[in-house]
Amino acid sequence: MSKKYVHGYTVRESVRLLDQASTLAGILHYDTIYPAGSNVLEAGCGVGAQTIILARNSPDAKFTAVDLSEESLRAAKERVSSQGFTNVTFHQSDIFHLPYEENSFDHLFLCFVLEHLPDPLKALQCLRRVLKRGGTITVIEGDHGSTYFFPDSPDAKKTIRCLIEIQAGIGGNSLIGRELYPLLRKAKFDRISVSPRMVYVDSSKPDLVEGFTKNTFIAMVKGVKEQALRSGLMEEAEWERGIRDLYRTTEEDGTFIYTFFKGMALK
Amino acid sequence: MSKKYVHGYTVRESVRLLDQASTLAGILHYDTIYPAGSNVLEAGCGVGAQTIILARNSPDAKFTAVDLSEESLRAAKERVSSQGFTNVTFHQSDIFHLPYEENSFDHLFLCFVLEHLPDPLKALQCLRRVLKRGGTITVIEGDHGSTYFFPDSPDAKKTIRCLIEIQAGIGGNSLIGRELYPLLRKAKFDRISVSPRMVYVDSSKPDLVEGFTKNTFIAMVKGVKEQALRSGLMEEAEWERGIRDLYRTTEEDGTFIYTFFKGMALK
Repeated sequence: MSKKYVHGYTVRESVRLLDQASTLAGILHYDTIYPAGSNVLEAGCGVGAQTIILARNSPDAKFTAVDLSEESLRAAKERVSSQGFTNVTFHQSDIFHLPYEENSFDHLFLCFVLEHLPDPLKALQCLRRVLKRGGTITVIEGDHGSTYFFPDSPDAKKTIRCLIEIQAGIGGNSLIGRELYPLLRKAKFDRISVSPRMVYVDSSKPDLVEGFTKNTFIAMVKGVKEQALRSGLMEEAEWERGIRDLYRTTEEDGTFIYTFFKGMALK
Repeated sequence: MSKKYVHGYTVRESVRLLDQASTLAGILHYDTIYPAGSNVLEAGCGVGAQTIILARNSPDAKFTAVDLSEESLRAAKERVSSQGFTNVTFHQSDIFHLPYEENSFDHLFLCFVLEHLPDPLKALQCLRRVLKRGGTITVIEGDHGSTYFFPDSPDAKKTIRCLIEIQAGIGGNSLIGRELYPLLRKAKFDRISVSPRMVYVDSSKPDLVEGFTKNTFIAMVKGVKEQALRSGLMEEAEWERGIRDLYRTTEEDGTFIYTFFKGMALK
């Protein structure tokens, strides 16, 4: 299974996911607050990077967080309880075979999950089944094709294309952000609204230079170095130039742009 | 001179510029309001597409609108006076040789101008000279490299690359949006803040599908067809497939994304 999650299951990756979640918590989560007493399913909670934000922002909602990986769930459980949150229950479960009855949940939440699935439409259909009529779904995804920067660099763009291709090679789609609207539509959700959340970074925003460009994005690209070289997508010298040029965008006169997409809809 | 403005000076282009300005007026202009009595220089006013919005939003400010093209100025003058605005004076003038003394203006405004200039940094320096200390500059530019869409299409991307290359070939830079921050910095402006203005279009927003994707963006790409074919950048069949695929993104399950950048700074 670890082969199917492009970023892997290392400790370094857990740190990256938490850096990402805390840097982006405002921009991605500020408008997700669930009412007291509502039952919310978080599908694909991973190591709990988003779970902890959900639990904090909606302390009186009850979350059920599921993931395929027992190991990730253990980490998520520990993280959530170590911060004193008691409003999350964890279950090991597969999105395509959820052990819940129809109309079980008031709301659904998933973040950075569809991009890793070979059939994201089917995942949305399976999730819709367990959602109550009138309940909401919130889906957050990135789109690696939304990345651009100054100074521009063909080598840097090529490192990002490696990540896109490696993820596609194991059945994922890292360009899924732009596709949220049609996917939610095909899955028969109603009142769909997709809201782009751009991260624009220049040197007047040192927290984003560190927390996003370096520790989230470049760290993510660097994570596929071995696979990129092994599969012959890039030569090592070219790769190193690409990574150097990505860091170049974090200097005083550089800029870096990436966009997440947040889709909200009703059943 | 007409060779130097990539989009040309046709009537169809004037209509496109006005479509663009009215569709985007909210997103680009809502936070540009000048105080009563202030003297504002609009550099590169063209046919007055932005001038009219400036004049309307700040009815008690006094605008001086300059452009290199006498013909565009005539059109701008007619447009502004036909709408009853009396707070704009027009002058034929070159940004690089402005006939104004140092510190003449309280504020500077320019929109879709730097992208067409061979030396945008020098333009900013020339403009800074005529700005009073403590006055503001507002610069709005697009970035054609910020474009992506669903369904994705290599042919459609290639038509956009043609526009980028043709514009670069006559000394322009249509990827300048991402570079506003470093440019304003190098031109020694203070308190620089760059704000991206994304246009995200899906079929839940029919006004943007028509007003932006079709009548602004695709119309702009179509405008360089002859040049693209003549210079051998694309074959006609490939070009037609590319344009068809751009229109494909305007269907019910398509999405289209473009980002403008608005830079604000002080002298």
